[in-house]
Amino acid sequence: MGLEMEAVPAAAAVAAGEQGVEIYPLSRYYFGAKDAAAAPRGVETPADRALRLKANFAAHGLRTSVHGVLLVELFDHPHVLLLQVRNSSFVLPGGRLRPGEEDVQGLKRKLSSKLSIVDDGEADAEDEDDWQVGECIGMWWRSEFEAIPFPYMPPNFRTPKECIKLFLIRLPMSRQFIVPRNMKLLAVPLSQIHNNAQVYGPVISGIPNLLSKFSLNVISD
Amino acid sequence: MGLEMEAVPAAAAVAAGEQGVEIYPLSRYYFGAKDAAAAPRGVETPADRALRLKANFAAHGLRTSVHGVLLVELFDHPHVLLLQVRNSSFVLPGGRLRPGEEDVQGLKRKLSSKLSIVDDGEADAEDEDDWQVGECIGMWWRSEFEAIPFPYMPPNFRTPKECIKLFLIRLPMSRQFIVPRNMKLLAVPLSQIHNNAQVYGPVISGIPNLLSKFSLNVISD
Repeated sequence: MGLEMEAVPAAAAVAAGEQGVEIYPLSRYYFGAKDAAAAPRGVETPADRALRLKANFAAHGLRTSVHGVLLVELFDHPHVLLLQVRNSSFVLPGGRLRPGEEDVQGLKRKLSSKLSIVDDGEADAEDEDDWQVGECIGMWWRSEFEAIPFPYMPPNFRTPKECIKLFLIRLPMSRQFIVPRNMKLLAVPLSQIHNNAQVYGPVISGIPNLLSKFSLNVISD
Repeated sequence: MGLEMEAVPAAAAVAAGEQGVEIYPLSRYYFGAKDAAAAPRGVETPADRALRLKANFAAHGLRTSVHGVLLVELFDHPHVLLLQVRNSSFVLPGGRLRPGEEDVQGLKRKLSSKLSIVDDGEADAEDEDDWQVGECIGMWWRSEFEAIPFPYMPPNFRTPKECIKLFLIRLPMSRQFIVPRNMKLLAVPLSQIHNNAQVYGPVISGIPNLLSKFSLNVISD
């Protein structure tokens, strides 16, 4: 039929190779818990947080946060791994870069602190190299720290306060995920996330669209 | 500040180069009109159309349509070129592949028939090569010919009827667009398209998200 008979020129075949993603069954992964990282700033009021972010912006400029999109198979359909803190909103594993830190290195550090046996701050080079960080698949901008992010620089803002970058992570066939006790790790189907900004927010709800160009090879048990 | 001081390793720099897109002012392009292509099937009833699509599917399998995302600058903000047929819905320039036709070649043929001086069906190799077709940025699937498309294969459908592919087109600094008289070519800002599925449909409204990973170099006059 149409798809199989199509002649694929060499350049296209190479591109398709890069864009292939193997997705392994959820059942091949092991899940455990570790102590919650102590909140570095204790309980912070929104006003204190706003002041801290403002001071950070003055000192270091644009705040960059990096997040990983990790995929697993369940019921023959790709699922995204999301973290939920105390039954509140869903977030992708990741976090903010340190001043001067490079995207991929910072993301590996954050993935290890949220999903590996290492404690936050103790991640060493060996653990961080464990993650296969692929290409940046999307980027969002906030004009203010609490503002809704946009996937482009809106015409009227020149000094964005935060840039949010999404990277595709290629998982090995099997591994352990060790999650802090104050968080839950959930596998959520693409079909539930798609267009569901009300539950998952604007960034996560756009992930199925960002993944659509990849050739997802969903492997079931 | 954060962004400028960031150390970029060689591999990342190469990737950024590939992901750069120059966007030139709308004022550098020339717009003209040509005769509307005669509707190949005259006025078709919805029932006739359903029968024709069903017969085509039986004969050729999955129907693939390919579309181009063309960007221009206006008011310092990227705009997408959309076609509007008789004040009805907005569509991206492009269309359906012929049986066995390759994506990029088919898209060049369609872009020429909608946006170049050539008449439909008369596009020759020279005209078609005029278009710099970049990577596939998104892919959508329809379970039935009139069904809502999804940016993934939903868990419960195994024989999609249509695949819709979006390609990024890199425009030269200047060129002519010659549009059939029964269509309007419009430049619509990313900020208006984003999340506006009601007006632009699910595929077009997701384009700002798909473009967010590119480094858009918006050049103004």
